[in-house]
Amino acid sequence: MKQAGAAVSQSERDTKQIIVDTAERFFRDIGYQKTTVADIAKSLRMSPANVYRFFDSKKSINEAVLERYKREQEEAIASIAAEDRSAAERLRDILATSYRLNAARFAGHARMQEMVCAAMEESWDAIIAHIERFDVVLRGVVADGIARGEFRPMEPAQATGCIRTAMIRFMHPLLITQCECIPGPSPDDMISFLLSALEARPSQS
Amino acid sequence: MKQAGAAVSQSERDTKQIIVDTAERFFRDIGYQKTTVADIAKSLRMSPANVYRFFDSKKSINEAVLERYKREQEEAIASIAAEDRSAAERLRDILATSYRLNAARFAGHARMQEMVCAAMEESWDAIIAHIERFDVVLRGVVADGIARGEFRPMEPAQATGCIRTAMIRFMHPLLITQCECIPGPSPDDMISFLLSALEARPSQS
Repeated sequence: MKQAGAAVSQSERDTKQIIVDTAERFFRDIGYQKTTVADIAKSLRMSPANVYRFFDSKKSINEAVLERYKREQEEAIASIAAEDRSAAERLRDILATSYRLNAARFAGHARMQEMVCAAMEESWDAIIAHIERFDVVLRGVVADGIARGEFRPMEPAQATGCIRTAMIRFMHPLLITQCECIPGPSPDDMISFLLSALEARPSQS
Repeated sequence: MKQAGAAVSQSERDTKQIIVDTAERFFRDIGYQKTTVADIAKSLRMSPANVYRFFDSKKSINEAVLERYKREQEEAIASIAAEDRSAAERLRDILATSYRLNAARFAGHARMQEMVCAAMEESWDAIIAHIERFDVVLRGVVADGIARGEFRPMEPAQATGCIRTAMIRFMHPLLITQCECIPGPSPDDMISFLLSALEARPSQS
């Protein structure tokens, strides 16, 4: 194990990255359960002990793979939230982008479900933390839309929870695959429907 | 196996019902995977061959258990849909009742997930048929609300798909359990949010 506080060199960061890339390929191709740290080490011509210098368990490697997914999504939506556009347009783009990123990773890759299931059992706190960061960004845009009069007056946190929950079929890695064969709206249709719950009503004459 | 077309006596219907009740208890208590037809037979002091007279496989027994759940839900919502109340009230009641029935069966019974997962792998057509019957009832109420001017003009089938999909966290047996620890709206709050997407807008003066 690395000493706490030891400086991390560029080459160590590169090695860590290569381990994560390799693990991700294994998880996608043969599944999380069947992949061993020894498999990952062997394919990199490393000793398992060398992999364990960077990650203390397969669980830690899985967290690093998912961490990267989450970070990419969080950066993408934060950047959309900061754009100078209407709240409705930014909200639409945030939800559509989140779906697109998740679908690209999980749709059609049945084995990717194993790593997500494992994370749901082993790393629940990390998932909750990701949901909370997602909510912070969404809530900012909703609050902005209310302040501008684009959206009807409501509690931004409440609306954010409803939007995120209503979109779960397009966000949850397992549902993205499972719901492919269930008739239902496209992500764009769903987003339009949710925006119509938010939009300001013309005041009655 | 029973002869096709043979008359089914009351006592045979009773036996079938008892097998389904017993299987349901096993599935809830020890899980679908670990339950065998021999377990069910033994607890009823029957021979496995006698159980097989009524159901040709554990899969068929599972379908009968889930069939009952689905029928109860479908009857409950059809009866609400036929009431003489506003479309919004009936819609609210249909969604809240569906959640309540599913939560009573699945929330807090981790082992019930196994029978649902098995059905999703083995009996997908039956699940799709249930969703379609649910949609028919919901769509009727939505169309009625549009015709009465309670809801804004829209395509009833499209709105129905959006509502059902948005409510999946409160309907899908696996999500009812899994999402218990994720912060989010109550079913009532979610339903109110979706109704606000439907409601007719006052025309601009």
